[in-house]
Amino acid sequence: MEHAIGVIDSGVGGLTVAKEIMRQMPNEIIYYVGDTARCPYGPRPEEEVRRFTLQMAGFLVERQIKMLVIACNTATAVVLKELRETLDIPVVGVIAPGARAALKVTENRKIGILGTIGTIKSQAYVHELKMINQQIEVEQLACPKFVPLVESFEYQSAVAKKVVAETLIPIKGKGLDTIVLGCTHYPLLGPLIQQEMGPKVKVISSGEETAQEVSTILDFNGWLNPSLAVPKHRFFTTGSQSIFRRIASDWLQIDDLHIEFVNLRNHEYLLGN
Amino acid sequence: MEHAIGVIDSGVGGLTVAKEIMRQMPNEIIYYVGDTARCPYGPRPEEEVRRFTLQMAGFLVERQIKMLVIACNTATAVVLKELRETLDIPVVGVIAPGARAALKVTENRKIGILGTIGTIKSQAYVHELKMINQQIEVEQLACPKFVPLVESFEYQSAVAKKVVAETLIPIKGKGLDTIVLGCTHYPLLGPLIQQEMGPKVKVISSGEETAQEVSTILDFNGWLNPSLAVPKHRFFTTGSQSIFRRIASDWLQIDDLHIEFVNLRNHEYLLGN
Repeated sequence: MEHAIGVIDSGVGGLTVAKEIMRQMPNEIIYYVGDTARCPYGPRPEEEVRRFTLQMAGFLVERQIKMLVIACNTATAVVLKELRETLDIPVVGVIAPGARAALKVTENRKIGILGTIGTIKSQAYVHELKMINQQIEVEQLACPKFVPLVESFEYQSAVAKKVVAETLIPIKGKGLDTIVLGCTHYPLLGPLIQQEMGPKVKVISSGEETAQEVSTILDFNGWLNPSLAVPKHRFFTTGSQSIFRRIASDWLQIDDLHIEFVNLRNHEYLLGN
Repeated sequence: MEHAIGVIDSGVGGLTVAKEIMRQMPNEIIYYVGDTARCPYGPRPEEEVRRFTLQMAGFLVERQIKMLVIACNTATAVVLKELRETLDIPVVGVIAPGARAALKVTENRKIGILGTIGTIKSQAYVHELKMINQQIEVEQLACPKFVPLVESFEYQSAVAKKVVAETLIPIKGKGLDTIVLGCTHYPLLGPLIQQEMGPKVKVISSGEETAQEVSTILDFNGWLNPSLAVPKHRFFTTGSQSIFRRIASDWLQIDDLHIEFVNLRNHEYLLGN
């Protein structure tokens, strides 16, 4: 099926998922919405996260996507269930794929979760891991300084290195063998996180795993795109097109990105009130 | 849902998939059928592979499984499509998960496939890989000596080491960065294969990946087993219960396995002729 895969995020973090979809399924077309103007979602009240996410979903559903990926852990924790019940296309979040990958690679069953305040408070990873395997021990850590570093294009700076080192202190020395980057922004800090945790700790990026699950579900339904034409991706941002372009070009290694401004306030029909 | 996951294979190879399902989803119950008496399937004509596989599937469907895993590459290549169309439960094979994992981990896009004569001739991996990414280069190698080594409990012997080394000669030095064990028996030879290919080559076991996709599909449908009772697995073999027990106990590290003999010739209703 040649329809696009919709990818939504609070900002640029979901690009880590989009990049993996492009790498693992180069025929697929992506329509991406980054709500950069209202990022970060992590510290926001649930009702706001819900409203903003349903606006993004509504905007893409009008454009006939075949599948929706909520490429934001905070939004996944709040509205995955509701969107699955509301939409008649498959909706995939980033929490279950990351959790499942951690269950696959852990040997000592001690898993660490790094996430935003919202994601950590929701206990979504703990719930998902324990639902599948009660014997898993989980350590959670909220890292509220990470998203602003990424959104301000600071993720390779000396400041980033210092912030990462200080933030991770509470979970070092706890014998974790697996760390889940429970926020799609964090893979941009991935090398610093891996360095800080040491080479023996497996660092799971939800992006790679979510892309694999998207592929699983498209393939299972016979919906993979058979077209060999170069896919025409579209990127929408609620904020500055130039900052979005700078980060997206750097991360995706694509020069001629088509980036459009969108006002989401006109796309409220999924809110139903 | 407390119903079992059905797992079928030509013999003991599918235990590599069953083991991963147990490890990644310890709440799930497994009903396993190994057609040990008629193993290997690899060199058999398609019509035989089809008939034997439909017998196994029919036997398990009568026992109300919620999902069927064809844990045999040869059988997947021949009957996955037909079983998906016939049964009203999800049917998962081992080829797509292995292919998808290879697409995820390869960096130089050069992937090797080891399989039985039947699997290699079917071009099923080549088709799956190229459908998703046309730029992948694939080298295939039939390894007909591997399954007999495993079924005869010879997989840790000096003979096995020699056979593996000799068999892999044609694909060494071709610059592959990823090898898919395209037969569920091969993970039992996994350490020898890894040693022979060297530490830089990523060796993909379909078992791990298939278990993750089973989890994806159960979770997506809300069918994961919420029961915390110790799952009562059942193992059926068409051949010697004692040889099956010996290999299964060694591989699964479970002592008190419940192994039953089954005559599949009474379970032909899926054959429809």
